[in-house]
Amino acid sequence: MDNANALSPQQIDEYRTTGYLVQERVFDEDEVTWLQAEAAREFAAGGERVTVEEGTDIVRGVHGCHLYTEAFGRLVRSPRLLPVAEQLLDDDVYVHQFKINAKRAFKGEVWEWHQDYTFWHHEDGMPAPRALTAAIFLDEVTEFNGPLTFVPGGHDDGMIDTEVNGEGWAGTLAASLKYSVDIDTMRKLIERNGMAAPKGPRGSVLWFDANIPHSSVPNISPFDRGLLLITYNSVANRIDLARGTRPEWLAARDFTPLTALHSMSS
Amino acid sequence: MDNANALSPQQIDEYRTTGYLVQERVFDEDEVTWLQAEAAREFAAGGERVTVEEGTDIVRGVHGCHLYTEAFGRLVRSPRLLPVAEQLLDDDVYVHQFKINAKRAFKGEVWEWHQDYTFWHHEDGMPAPRALTAAIFLDEVTEFNGPLTFVPGGHDDGMIDTEVNGEGWAGTLAASLKYSVDIDTMRKLIERNGMAAPKGPRGSVLWFDANIPHSSVPNISPFDRGLLLITYNSVANRIDLARGTRPEWLAARDFTPLTALHSMSS
Repeated sequence: MDNANALSPQQIDEYRTTGYLVQERVFDEDEVTWLQAEAAREFAAGGERVTVEEGTDIVRGVHGCHLYTEAFGRLVRSPRLLPVAEQLLDDDVYVHQFKINAKRAFKGEVWEWHQDYTFWHHEDGMPAPRALTAAIFLDEVTEFNGPLTFVPGGHDDGMIDTEVNGEGWAGTLAASLKYSVDIDTMRKLIERNGMAAPKGPRGSVLWFDANIPHSSVPNISPFDRGLLLITYNSVANRIDLARGTRPEWLAARDFTPLTALHSMSS
Repeated sequence: MDNANALSPQQIDEYRTTGYLVQERVFDEDEVTWLQAEAAREFAAGGERVTVEEGTDIVRGVHGCHLYTEAFGRLVRSPRLLPVAEQLLDDDVYVHQFKINAKRAFKGEVWEWHQDYTFWHHEDGMPAPRALTAAIFLDEVTEFNGPLTFVPGGHDDGMIDTEVNGEGWAGTLAASLKYSVDIDTMRKLIERNGMAAPKGPRGSVLWFDANIPHSSVPNISPFDRGLLLITYNSVANRIDLARGTRPEWLAARDFTPLTALHSMSS
């Protein structure tokens, strides 16, 4: 297995404490260029899996690519990703959700403060927050292109009750999120724990907990901020299909434990 | 004259090269607390000089306070501000515009890329970019509360032609600015010069050139980012009242050279 990736005990501690961890340059320039080309194809394909920035035809993101495109089906089994997901979740894992967020230069819009687990629990019937996301930086992430912004340690408070904004699952993809954390709660959390916006070069991977509150500002720079987000879930935490409401491209139904490939290209 | 402020030749060079300069803690905690209290009174007063965030009743800013409130009339003559404005503009100066931007916690919205001089030239009949702004930080400015973001050296290209968005002067106060720089031009400028978002503690002063392109992202933090902005203009560069269209609280008509007070409170 070439380039197998594993975290040190210190890295695992850091992840457990803060709720996130950056590994720089997990993928090299050529690999990222290849991922970007595959992502561009997905954006261009259109259809219900592709969402746009409100009131425009500018792509905001695309979901479920691992189910339909071989390259992404292989990516989620990469030896650079899968063993780390297994380490952090301490179990075999499968992919619950896959998306690519475009955050286009000058066009990518704000994401309100939210926890991912709220969506997975309410919409998909995920029983516990035993899931996490690997965000692969398709572009360098800087302070100017709308980095993900976290409350370090905010995952420890668990899922926060939220109001429900709108009905049905379509609102889970809207810019005005169906479940966002109210500002009084965010104020208290941030006054206690502060904020952090991890940055890094292309090809870095940002791991983050299902329950960490996060948001991002618009991209006012001329540089895209593409993120490829793979959500791994513990197989012991499979979703309850009787409670789930969303289509498979938003909440996958194949709970078979993934096995790592020897390399992305083999 | 207590606390008179003056720039070193190195600071003046830095300002000429980059188009901006930060002086940290020009005003102390008590002074900033006092300025904030005066600002809060202006916000609460309502009327045409107060603008709100689009579709809300949340204050975005207030203009012309130096004309109506003694405290702000004195502030623009502060020995910590006026001598620096005179140094940088190399002339006697008067105040062309005065505003306080609220950039409220969780609420303050984006400002598009623009140059201030475009507004002063087209709307107010200012003949040349011999003006600058002193931005007093009423709150600490961080990467999270929507700092002003500049293209260092971008002032050297002079005023950029822009499309005109809407009619009349009301659009000069709208969130969708009447004169914003197109993204192709911004892309070229930023690819050449980069971006910078100066930060600093409360009471710092950020000086910036009439022609420097700038923008700011929304404030997603629980911390307000109040800025008090005083635009000084060279008396030799007085506006052409025959060409100006805006009311006095947006484009002042008293061109008498200002004289420094001995202190803000004396």
